[in-house]
This record gives sequence, structure tokens and C-alpha cells, in this order.
Amino acid sequence: MQSLPGFRDFLPDDCARRNYIFARWREVARRYGFVEWEGPPLEATELYKKKSGGEIVEQLFNFTDKGEREVALRPELTPTLARVVAAHEREFKKPLKWFSIGQFFRYEKQQRGRLREHFQLNCDIIGEKDLAADIELVALSIDILRAFGLTEKDFVVRISDREFWTDFFRGKNVPAERWDDLLQAIDKSTREPREKTAEKLGDLADPIFTALKSGGKGAKLEQLVDGLGARGLANFVAADVGIVRGLAYYTGIVFEVFDRAGKFRAIAGGGRYDNLISQLSDGSLSLPALGFAMGDVVVGELIDEIPQTREAMQKAIANDRKIDVYAVIAKEQRRADALAQIQQLRDRGYRADYPLTPTKVGRQFQSGEDLGARVAVLYGDEWPQVKIKNMGTGEQELVAGDKLLDRLAELL
Amino acid sequence: MQSLPGFRDFLPDDCARRNYIFARWREVARRYGFVEWEGPPLEATELYKKKSGGEIVEQLFNFTDKGEREVALRPELTPTLARVVAAHEREFKKPLKWFSIGQFFRYEKQQRGRLREHFQLNCDIIGEKDLAADIELVALSIDILRAFGLTEKDFVVRISDREFWTDFFRGKNVPAERWDDLLQAIDKSTREPREKTAEKLGDLADPIFTALKSGGKGAKLEQLVDGLGARGLANFVAADVGIVRGLAYYTGIVFEVFDRAGKFRAIAGGGRYDNLISQLSDGSLSLPALGFAMGDVVVGELIDEIPQTREAMQKAIANDRKIDVYAVIAKEQRRADALAQIQQLRDRGYRADYPLTPTKVGRQFQSGEDLGARVAVLYGDEWPQVKIKNMGTGEQELVAGDKLLDRLAELL
Repeated sequence: MQSLPGFRDFLPDDCARRNYIFARWREVARRYGFVEWEGPPLEATELYKKKSGGEIVEQLFNFTDKGEREVALRPELTPTLARVVAAHEREFKKPLKWFSIGQFFRYEKQQRGRLREHFQLNCDIIGEKDLAADIELVALSIDILRAFGLTEKDFVVRISDREFWTDFFRGKNVPAERWDDLLQAIDKSTREPREKTAEKLGDLADPIFTALKSGGKGAKLEQLVDGLGARGLANFVAADVGIVRGLAYYTGIVFEVFDRAGKFRAIAGGGRYDNLISQLSDGSLSLPALGFAMGDVVVGELIDEIPQTREAMQKAIANDRKIDVYAVIAKEQRRADALAQIQQLRDRGYRADYPLTPTKVGRQFQSGEDLGARVAVLYGDEWPQVKIKNMGTGEQELVAGDKLLDRLAELL
Repeated sequence: MQSLPGFRDFLPDDCARRNYIFARWREVARRYGFVEWEGPPLEATELYKKKSGGEIVEQLFNFTDKGEREVALRPELTPTLARVVAAHEREFKKPLKWFSIGQFFRYEKQQRGRLREHFQLNCDIIGEKDLAADIELVALSIDILRAFGLTEKDFVVRISDREFWTDFFRGKNVPAERWDDLLQAIDKSTREPREKTAEKLGDLADPIFTALKSGGKGAKLEQLVDGLGARGLANFVAADVGIVRGLAYYTGIVFEVFDRAGKFRAIAGGGRYDNLISQLSDGSLSLPALGFAMGDVVVGELIDEIPQTREAMQKAIANDRKIDVYAVIAKEQRRADALAQIQQLRDRGYRADYPLTPTKVGRQFQSGEDLGARVAVLYGDEWPQVKIKNMGTGEQELVAGDKLLDRLAELL
């Protein structure tokens, strides 16, 4: 029997990598004053059909449950967030700064490196319309990647403003019902042949290509880039009105993070979705909002790609895995004494391990080394004294068994 | 729109409680030398149909995916563990000591307090047949609950040995095909009227009721209880051959953890399943194994029930939530200076927050207090000096802005 196609098993090494990524996500989000929340992995399909636009619904991992409900494994968090905020916003002071780490799903044809599940960090700010919130959010996305040791040589945040385009459309008297299709075409323009984009843009192809080429960005986008510059983050960002983002619900600033080498898919993406909460609450509540998501797969690929970030990860994982004490039971008559002390060590919070069954002393030391034990404590002929061996330096000392805890408190 | 019936939203307070439970689960499992792994939330339905026995399959949250696969949201972890171990065991030294924290699902009628999802800690030892592994595992389940501040007055581990019964059946020449039904009847005997159990047991009712009453436990169970006693855990355990566990795959020692007051469902349960890996690998691999699972819902209820554990949780959550620094921007001309310093503070790992938009000074201090800030740093007329206010004592001091980081390093 195997796991389902597109679903990963996290063996201990994989799980340690995943937890390394989660820990940095959580750590930096909290430095920014974001608080953690989480939604359910299964939602009513309706929640996504209404709000997310075409592509994501085609790829939904959806089904009918035993109670005849149309349900879906969540493809993204934002609709859940809007649902939860619409129900509970009165309980919280605005703005909310919330983050969440969870697993998301899509059903699509299997391709190299395309999974049917991945983990995402989602960070959102609810209830603040000022551009200061957009700056804060983009800065957070940058600092999270910096926490892995990534630098401005490794990644760039490409930032755009949907209003640049809606203003542009208004200026050209383009009817509003065409806007979505035009935005989708602009979004795909860097990935598709120019002719194909031109066909989709029709009579607007020339002015849109000119705008894309001109490097114009509009006042708001300029102000946002300046704000990031004031924080010393200018080298991490580039204004690029060619970025639009596929999801239908974005309304203002949108951004995507890419590796500089252009080797991977987007590392993260997000933007403003000021109308979504209003839509989901049928207009009873209106709150400006913005957020981004970052997936574990691409972040992991990028960390692996760059020697210094890969080594930093490996070192952190190796350190985190270490145990404190390995008890070497050299004489089986001492097993009960050793176990009583292991119980005490664990009670004090030490990571302590020992051989479950009689084992040769040499193999026990090897186990201690394999587990990264900082010291080995040998229970043998010396009892009621024990021998402490520093596994780093090889130094050994004898201490009275009943002084072991005191001595370890000094050593560890 | 609402969440689906039986599915929880974790607002920040709920998420903090959940993370408090997860942190202690992870911490104590690692003290015992267990390493973390994780499986996928969706598996082939077949994995559960073959191995878990009747009840769990009836309650499966299963469906047919778009590729015509029969799949199920996982109801438990053990079949996944057996699948993963069968595929990868050669990569690891035995015994494996693995733990996992994840979400599990079942589809059953909605009842008070019965959810359709919950989180579970799973701890398993693979590749060790010696009773020492059973003792280690039960001790771990006890120490995890002790880490919440729970004592022997609050919970008890009731331990049984399925072999006590299989030996008993053999002694009475009961055909093996009756054993499963008899074990299920014994398992339900404390929850059902005696007559109903008697009917299921048939001709064996009298000797089985006598055995249940006698307090007999067999040599292995006695040895296990003694082993826990040697670790100082005697008061946490009770031999009770009435415990059998519903799942069909258990083969030896089984145990369940209950609150002493008898108010809640089982807090945790587990046991030996020495044949499961062999079954799942069609006999190509045979490894003894044992494990237990503990759910977040009942643990949370028990923590809430007992004043000292509830207060310990609340205190830990309140402490963990605190930020380090709140920047009070008293003069908007100083906003850029404040933001530059906040960027530096966060780079150094401090949790720092500030008002995104111009706000009255009094309200800013209130925000700092609400966020549990340890200090407020005021940017105003004193610039290039800033005022540091200790939010605990109210003490204030002026320092040069460019000395702020050094001074905070001393204070925090």
C-alpha cells in the first residue's frame, strides 16, 4: 500500500525540515505582532464557488458527504478567514493581525513537483485601509524569507496595484465587465506568447503593452516602494504592474515573491481584498483587508538551492534533534537505578534515553552518539557512583549517583 | 456562512489553547527520545477497511475522488504508520520511537461534545517485543499528563493484557473465531447492562464475570505494573482486565487513561499491535509494535475542570502572548524614525508593534498594555532621545535613540 498520488509522508527528516520552516514562519509573524488562528480543513464548497474565481474551483478537491452536503478540502484560507471574521469581528479591536499555518489541497493532473497538498503560512491584516498596512505586510513577507538566511540576491518581491489598471481602464472607457478578462490576460502575459496575449487584449493590446513596458506604477505603488525603502528593504522589491494575481477577489496592491534566478514558481503571493468580507456577509459588514500566503514546497526548494541557507537549515535541525543524556547500562543489575534516574532527568525537562533491553556497552555509546547525546551517564561497577562522559570532548568524571542531577545542571 | 457541523474554527484564544496542548505533547515526547513524523490526512479507504475493525469503518469520512479512487479522511494514524514503516523500516535502527501530532476525522451522528474532527498525539515504538517498551510507553502517557499539572488524583491508567483473555479462551477450548466477539463484549461490559453482556458471552458468561471480578491479571501485567512502580508511577496505574479496546488489531498489553472522577470519555488509549505491520506488508515484514493516542478535546476538558491546571494554562498562554516592545509615536514627524528602529528590533528577534496610523498617545499606551508589551518606547519631542517606559513598574527613562537597542538588551 502507498500514499495517494500527490500526498506526502513526512518521515522524521522531512518532518524536521517542515518544522524548521514552520518555526521561522511562526517566529517572524509573532515578531510583527501577528497572532495565530486556524480554520477547518473541510468547508462547504459554496464558500469557494462564490468567491475565488474560476481556476481554483476547477481544481477543488470536493465531494458530497454522507449527509448530502457539498464539501471541499480547502484550497486556500482567505474565504475561511472572511467567514470567521464576519462572524466574530466584534470580539476584536481592529486592525486584526492574524496568521495561520495549515495544509491545503487541490485536485489537478499530476505533474513533476505539483502536489495535491501543501502547507501554507497565511498572514492577514483586517480592518485597516491605510497603505501603512500594505507596507507592513510586504515587509513581513521579506523578513520571513530573511529569517532563513535568504538575501536580496536570492529573491525579489514584485509589487503591483490593481487600481493602476482599473484607473487605466476607466481612462479608456473600457466597460467594467471586460476588466476581469483583461486582468487575467495581463497576469498571464509573461508566461504566454505575445500574440496570444494580444489576441485576448484585442483593441487594448497596444496601449496595455506600452503601459507594461513604460515602468509606470502610479502614486500609491510609488509610495509603497518608498515606505519599504525607509525600512531598509528597498533592494528586496520591484514595482511591476505586470503582476495581477489570478484570484478574482483582489482589489488593490498585489504582490508575488520570486527567486531571482527565476527557477521556481512564486514563493509567496497576496494583496488587498477589500470587498471580500462584505460579499461573504451579504453586505452586512464591510472591512478592508489584505494578506499573503507562502507555501512550504517552494520555500523548501529555494532553501535547498542556496548553499548557505541549506547548511543553516541542516545545522539547526541537527542541533534541535540532539538529546541531553544517554544512559549506558553497563551492568544489568543497575538497570532499575538507571531507570529511576532517567525518570528524574525527564521530570526536570532533560531529553534522556537508554537501551530498552540488554545491549553491549560499545553499541550503547554508539546509540548515544547517534542520538546526539551531550553526555553519556554510565551505570556499572562504580555504583553508587556513575561515570559522566562528555560526548563532545570525551572527558569523563565520576560523581555520586545522588549528585548526578546537580552535576548535570552545571554541565548542560 | 458557517463552518460545517462538527468542525471547529480556532480563533486566537482557541488556537493558543491548542498550541499549549501541542507544545506539552511535543516537549514530553521529545524528553523520552521520540522523534516527530507525520502522514497525510487522506488515505486509500482500503487501508482502514482491512485493518481497523468494524466500528471505525462505519464512521469513516470517505468518498470517491475525481480519479475514481476510494479515499477517506484518516480516522486514526496507526494504519498509516504501519504503511510507512513497512515501506521505510530499513532506513532506521530499531526500535523506532516516533510521535506525531495531527488532525483526524470521523463521520457520525452529531452529539453533544462529539466532533467530526479532533487532534491527536500518537506515540509509537516499533521493533521491540520486550515488555520494557510497554512500560516506557505507559510511562510516557503518564508524564505527558503530568506536564499539564495533572496528578494521580486526577487521572488513572487502566491497563490490561489481551493475552490474559486469549490464554483464558485457550484454557477453556473456545474456538478462535469466537474470540473477537467475546473481547468486544468484555470491552463494552462496564458500559452495558450485565444481562446484555451475559447474553453475548453465552456459556462463558459465568467464568468471564468471575475473572473480571477476581482482580487476576496474569504474570505479564503484574510485571508491567511493577516496572511502572519502580519509576515512582505506581499511583497512576491500575490493572483492569475489563479494558480491551475496540480496535481489532491489538494483540497484547492495552491501556486506557481516564479521569478519576469518571466525568469524561477516555483521555488516551493504546496498546500492542504486533501483527499489523505483517498484515499490511502481506507477511513480507514482521515487526512488533505498540502505541497510544491522546486527543486534544478530552485533555482540554480535563485541564479546564481542575482549577490548578486551568490556571497554569491561562498563565502560560498569557505569558506566551506578550510582545516585547510597543512603539508609541507621539509626533507623526518621528514615524519614520520609529519604523526604522522597529525594523531593527524585529531583526534582533524582539516582538515589536506600533500603530499603523496616527493615534492618540493615550490609546497607543492602551494598545501596548493590551498586547502585554514589556516596555513602551515613546518617539516624540525628546528625539533624538526616546523615552522607555517599563510597562510593569511604570518607571521611565530617557536614552539616546541610537543607544536604544543596547539599553533594551539590558532590560529585556
